[in-house]
Amino acid sequence: MMSERIKGVLSPVVTPFREDLSVDLPRFIDQCKWLQSNQIGLAFLGTNSEANSLSPQERLEMIEALVQAGLNPKGMMPGTGGCDLPSTVRLTQRAVELGCAGVLMLPPFYYKGVSDEGLYRYFSEVIQRVADDRLKIYLYHIPPVAQVGITLPLIERLLKSYPSVIAGVKDSSGDWQNTQAMLERFGPQGFDVFAGSETFLLQTLRGGGAGCISATANVNAVAIHGLYQNWKGPDADAQQRGLDRIRQIFQSFPMIPALKSAIAHWSSNDDWLRLRPPLTQLSPDQHRDLIQQLEAAGFSITGLR
Amino acid sequence: MMSERIKGVLSPVVTPFREDLSVDLPRFIDQCKWLQSNQIGLAFLGTNSEANSLSPQERLEMIEALVQAGLNPKGMMPGTGGCDLPSTVRLTQRAVELGCAGVLMLPPFYYKGVSDEGLYRYFSEVIQRVADDRLKIYLYHIPPVAQVGITLPLIERLLKSYPSVIAGVKDSSGDWQNTQAMLERFGPQGFDVFAGSETFLLQTLRGGGAGCISATANVNAVAIHGLYQNWKGPDADAQQRGLDRIRQIFQSFPMIPALKSAIAHWSSNDDWLRLRPPLTQLSPDQHRDLIQQLEAAGFSITGLR
Repeated sequence: MMSERIKGVLSPVVTPFREDLSVDLPRFIDQCKWLQSNQIGLAFLGTNSEANSLSPQERLEMIEALVQAGLNPKGMMPGTGGCDLPSTVRLTQRAVELGCAGVLMLPPFYYKGVSDEGLYRYFSEVIQRVADDRLKIYLYHIPPVAQVGITLPLIERLLKSYPSVIAGVKDSSGDWQNTQAMLERFGPQGFDVFAGSETFLLQTLRGGGAGCISATANVNAVAIHGLYQNWKGPDADAQQRGLDRIRQIFQSFPMIPALKSAIAHWSSNDDWLRLRPPLTQLSPDQHRDLIQQLEAAGFSITGLR
Repeated sequence: MMSERIKGVLSPVVTPFREDLSVDLPRFIDQCKWLQSNQIGLAFLGTNSEANSLSPQERLEMIEALVQAGLNPKGMMPGTGGCDLPSTVRLTQRAVELGCAGVLMLPPFYYKGVSDEGLYRYFSEVIQRVADDRLKIYLYHIPPVAQVGITLPLIERLLKSYPSVIAGVKDSSGDWQNTQAMLERFGPQGFDVFAGSETFLLQTLRGGGAGCISATANVNAVAIHGLYQNWKGPDADAQQRGLDRIRQIFQSFPMIPALKSAIAHWSSNDDWLRLRPPLTQLSPDQHRDLIQQLEAAGFSITGLR
């Protein structure tokens, strides 16, 4: 029996913090409800969620809180990868038990220059320890941040050993040739390639990919999903250019604080500005500049609580 | 009241694993006893300990196990730094409660290109949350692995705000000019600089530094401590050259598996060969080659259990 795979536009949901920097779960749930109501999948606990600034216990509680709040786990792909095997296994196991569509898994990223053999063994150990037929792993390739990447030969070997578990990849390399190579080599086997940003959404869909998992889906949710629905339409290229303009504005600031600035502005809630160190919020000047540029481009976010 | 600071030669103790890759605590305790009996300080849970391949809970249990086994916490500087604040605070707090001489603290290393301001806030948060006068932090500068480093202006600012807490640094940059700058700028304030390997031990001691924290102190313990004791002697330079020869042999292999190969060989216990993925052990050929080169250099380890 083939269950339906998660596809489309997913957001690495930004994490709201209270004044004491603890996770504000009710506000997080509201944000995820807003995203799901806009047809955005929840790739929460990603890079843009500051997941690696959260303890394994905090991450576990966030997965549980979302499901307990009644959000649909079939629209969830939480990030469960860390540097250590026990934490990764524990989080992954719980996500699977709760019915999440899949998990997005970073390679262990402390040691640099590790071999594909070592990474293969790491993912193998996770799969064997989780030991659940429902497990779907999306490999997370983000060399600019993790430094440790997921090569094509590694994907090939994992797919051969675990064809029903290795479900796809998020390619945040920013290198279209790499995304294209993944689409061509593994797409025909049912391996789902997600672009790491909407910049490559149209190209990815035209190449047979599954969609994108993008920071800016936190804020430009409606328009990005609009292109996903209409990618075969005659105005798809124009829609892509519209998305690119907004993306470029965000990209000219540090991304995570910029996302939080925009959400704070359009929800009229400055609590959203908080980040966990080592990240810091935009300066007041940067914040003003960001909002002005977005407004000048006709951008706004509606329906935030 | 000024308590006596930890100095000398410390080892990032390699971590022994059982067949199921769990931490072999009794064997770990034995190894630490052997090191302490050779006057080597225990900078366990470091890079060479595969600490970031261990969960926060496993790290906590290792700190507790050593103290409960009767080893002297005044000779301990466990690594407690990770990417997230709650885990770092919890481990640091426990190490201080148990009387450890200090903790070695990595900066949060997932996000790259972070600002000194963000890192300052991170360390500040840790210090304020641990809230214990006994806390002594040794900053861990290891840019080749962590990618996120500890700059001189960051040290200056932290020292100004927390003069009794910021006790020193381990400089694993491999850049002597950086170590020298730390010695010159902060040494006179009582800031203890440890070289990141014995390659710079003599230079560091001559520059007023505190010693070294070195991977190869796991295996070449006696000789490295020998130089520490005799660094003002007429044959100190010759001793340094002897250390360098052994270090060079280890450095021509992947360091952590090479340390484990040597300990496995001289303890006649192949259980020592295990590593957690993504790290992998030496091939049989590499293992043989390493041991041959070490034997040809007159090297051996005695007294291992």
